[in-house]
Amino acid sequence: MKERFAISPTREEDYPEWFQQVIKAADMAENSPVRGCMVIKPWGYGIWEILQRTLDDDIKATGHENAYFPLFIPLSYLEKEAAHVDGFAKECAVVTHHRLEQKDGKLIPEGPLEEPLIVRPTSEMIIGESFSRWIESWRDLPLLLNQWANVVRWEMRPRIFLRTAEFLWQEGHTAHASEQEAMEETLKMLDVYRKLAEETLAVPVILGEKSEGERFPGAVKTFTLEAMMQDRKALQGGTSHYLGQNFAKGNNIRFNNKDGEMEYAYTTSWGVTTRLIGALIMAHGDDDGLRVPPKVAPKQVVIIPVIPKPELEEVVLAFAEKAAQAISKESYNGLSVRVHVDKRDIRGGEKSWEWIKKGAPIRLEIGPRDVESESVMMMRRDKPHKDKEKVGMDDLSQAVVIALNEMQQNLFNQAKTYRDQHIYTNINTFDEMKAFFTPKNPDKPEIHGGFVKAKWCGDPATEELLKELKVTIRCLPLEQSGTEGKCILTGKPATLDAIFAKSY
Amino acid sequence: MKERFAISPTREEDYPEWFQQVIKAADMAENSPVRGCMVIKPWGYGIWEILQRTLDDDIKATGHENAYFPLFIPLSYLEKEAAHVDGFAKECAVVTHHRLEQKDGKLIPEGPLEEPLIVRPTSEMIIGESFSRWIESWRDLPLLLNQWANVVRWEMRPRIFLRTAEFLWQEGHTAHASEQEAMEETLKMLDVYRKLAEETLAVPVILGEKSEGERFPGAVKTFTLEAMMQDRKALQGGTSHYLGQNFAKGNNIRFNNKDGEMEYAYTTSWGVTTRLIGALIMAHGDDDGLRVPPKVAPKQVVIIPVIPKPELEEVVLAFAEKAAQAISKESYNGLSVRVHVDKRDIRGGEKSWEWIKKGAPIRLEIGPRDVESESVMMMRRDKPHKDKEKVGMDDLSQAVVIALNEMQQNLFNQAKTYRDQHIYTNINTFDEMKAFFTPKNPDKPEIHGGFVKAKWCGDPATEELLKELKVTIRCLPLEQSGTEGKCILTGKPATLDAIFAKSY
Repeated sequence: MKERFAISPTREEDYPEWFQQVIKAADMAENSPVRGCMVIKPWGYGIWEILQRTLDDDIKATGHENAYFPLFIPLSYLEKEAAHVDGFAKECAVVTHHRLEQKDGKLIPEGPLEEPLIVRPTSEMIIGESFSRWIESWRDLPLLLNQWANVVRWEMRPRIFLRTAEFLWQEGHTAHASEQEAMEETLKMLDVYRKLAEETLAVPVILGEKSEGERFPGAVKTFTLEAMMQDRKALQGGTSHYLGQNFAKGNNIRFNNKDGEMEYAYTTSWGVTTRLIGALIMAHGDDDGLRVPPKVAPKQVVIIPVIPKPELEEVVLAFAEKAAQAISKESYNGLSVRVHVDKRDIRGGEKSWEWIKKGAPIRLEIGPRDVESESVMMMRRDKPHKDKEKVGMDDLSQAVVIALNEMQQNLFNQAKTYRDQHIYTNINTFDEMKAFFTPKNPDKPEIHGGFVKAKWCGDPATEELLKELKVTIRCLPLEQSGTEGKCILTGKPATLDAIFAKSY
Repeated sequence: MKERFAISPTREEDYPEWFQQVIKAADMAENSPVRGCMVIKPWGYGIWEILQRTLDDDIKATGHENAYFPLFIPLSYLEKEAAHVDGFAKECAVVTHHRLEQKDGKLIPEGPLEEPLIVRPTSEMIIGESFSRWIESWRDLPLLLNQWANVVRWEMRPRIFLRTAEFLWQEGHTAHASEQEAMEETLKMLDVYRKLAEETLAVPVILGEKSEGERFPGAVKTFTLEAMMQDRKALQGGTSHYLGQNFAKGNNIRFNNKDGEMEYAYTTSWGVTTRLIGALIMAHGDDDGLRVPPKVAPKQVVIIPVIPKPELEEVVLAFAEKAAQAISKESYNGLSVRVHVDKRDIRGGEKSWEWIKKGAPIRLEIGPRDVESESVMMMRRDKPHKDKEKVGMDDLSQAVVIALNEMQQNLFNQAKTYRDQHIYTNINTFDEMKAFFTPKNPDKPEIHGGFVKAKWCGDPATEELLKELKVTIRCLPLEQSGTEGKCILTGKPATLDAIFAKSY
């Protein structure tokens, strides 16, 4: 183990570049030759698959069903939703032709479409059209659907996992017979997301409502979960929107209510994306690479056979397999423990570093001496690499489950401690805020800032002031103190608590 | 139950229209306003999800990992693969712009791309580019990847589930150090598909190799699974391709072999699509609607409370819930039995017909008298609707599992019997074949034909003859008799056994 740190630069040295290097070192994903699009490699996709299965179970447990709607949206559908287009549908992939012709060895687009198609940036518009046909009576409500899909928003400055032209997500779309029911749904799904972030990804989040300036175009209320990364910036982990009757009106989603009157439905939408993998990396990674919370680790336990002489290979591998079998019979988080024996023909030290960089929660080293003593050396990714614990074979599978549980909890605690240390409640004026959010060395921005929790008067016009600081109101936390104070932006009396921060 | 048949027309009357009506009656999917694209509704998507999870488990159990590659492919990548373009990449969605501008209330495509992008019709070309960078040495092989994705092939005559512009699929892509290993992979995955078709979807298939005329563009060998629908046409259930070094050469996928020499890799690709849902419908549906094989039914048991008077509602529903709980504790095919209590406020008879049309395997009716006698009335979708079996509460969950097992087997047996009855080995000349495949009433084509199993000389030129009959060689079955005979097309001596049929 030559290098002290596997990742160069360190977080302190250059946080954005550290993020890219962690992704590379962990072999999670890479930029593709198609501008702004990424290739998600097995270690990154494996995390997504587990996250997806976990969330999908909860989406179904709350009464939703999955469906699938078309990738393409006719241009005219967007014209119906002016707010939508202004908001984010402007930068999108436009399909204009449906055929290629070969001319002089070149391929030329042919078959111009009568009406261009947009690759979905979100599916409200196409799903709204279906809802308008499917919903006739209060008996058809609530309609609770979810879709797992790829979406495309053309990005001028793409960043892998955080902002890519194509990304993967789920989008829930529901319609209800009353405002109250739709609001309950909106908050219920926000809590499903909180559970995913905190209990599965081990990322603590603050739940809150977005201010008007940060609201989803067309929504009545937008709720969010905000997490703090290790550079103290905020990352929006997901959103849940109460759309009131706005979308129902735009899409003519009406139902015959119990009084026999036609009424517009109350709708919601909510989504989380592959961005959550970016959050996981930035919340838990260290200067040696990724640290994956055990619940979402594609491989939770990696066994590294150490074979000093070829003639010892058989006995060491046999013992490794025996250990793997014992462990995989154990259950963690309701599933068999995912264990992997790394049999590749490369040096053990090299393997160890690879799995450190990938952030596999537990590594087990097994050499000839361990075989003799019927034990293994256990290392946890959330502890110093040299902390090796000798565990007897009889206790192994239980020790593994205990360690997985502890590490899951430990990662959450570490992230929460870091976040709580950087939530500031002693910043009360705009000037103080300005000083707080200004890097000391503008040539080489250091990690600085955090979440400022302060009073806000609620006037949308005041959000403009924040632009020069590149700061936004992240949310008005659901938990409000109710105390009175002065607005940090205007000095006027204010009761609202708000979180201010720089963000991804 | 007024109507004798829930579906009009019947299969005999108009098979293609029956297919559309079954999909509609079962509420599985519908055509979307986007030409050629479908909306897959929860009952159809639920089947897909279970199929997907089943297959995904097997893909992983055979050593593959999932990854995700971009939706878009640069036009120039297609130019590298002439065979590919000729084969099927011609009819595809072309993205030419990346922005919309509002002008006079209209949205206009702006931001022309320097190089147009194609929405992937398949991902060989983009995955090949990655493989060429990822593979350096024999140590990197085999590389065994799979992707679940949406793909787009512009269809002039789209048909829901069978031929849609956008469809969902998985595509496996692997690279190997030797021809032998790649061929083994190709056949291994063919068998994984066979297992999915026969053991999960209850659709019997014939495994075989495609003739040259039917081969995947650029492949050395293409293998297929061919199923017979109830109109006796063939449906290709999936394909597995041995690509030799063809794609490796086109994409420069080379590795340093054990002798230290650079060599092109041997690659494979294999896929199945949402088309399999079409196969399931056409293999098992009857004139009352869909019949879903229990293993892929989103709801395997539907409980229909029959409530003659409002004051009996509570006691009937309580008993229904009790039954549901008992059943859901039982396990079938390694998972909890999926049971649903249909509490909607509509007539019991209406509910019954709905679930018949949807093809839910088991229906349980519970009325006040059943509550009194602590029993339920059980009905199986593969038996006449009036066959009701009285089952005591104590025996219920076991009876359900037995019935699910029996129905799964029964659907397979019925489909296999039908298919075997319509495989003809007594047709030996082209004239006989022509008569066999010609409908008696060309104005209103009846169900006719079947699979002709006959000798073929293997000369690719002879496949042209089949065009006038709209017949193709479906496959050369893996199980060959080895006997000698005369080619059905030319009369020349021939040993190959081939399956001839009309197809989807």
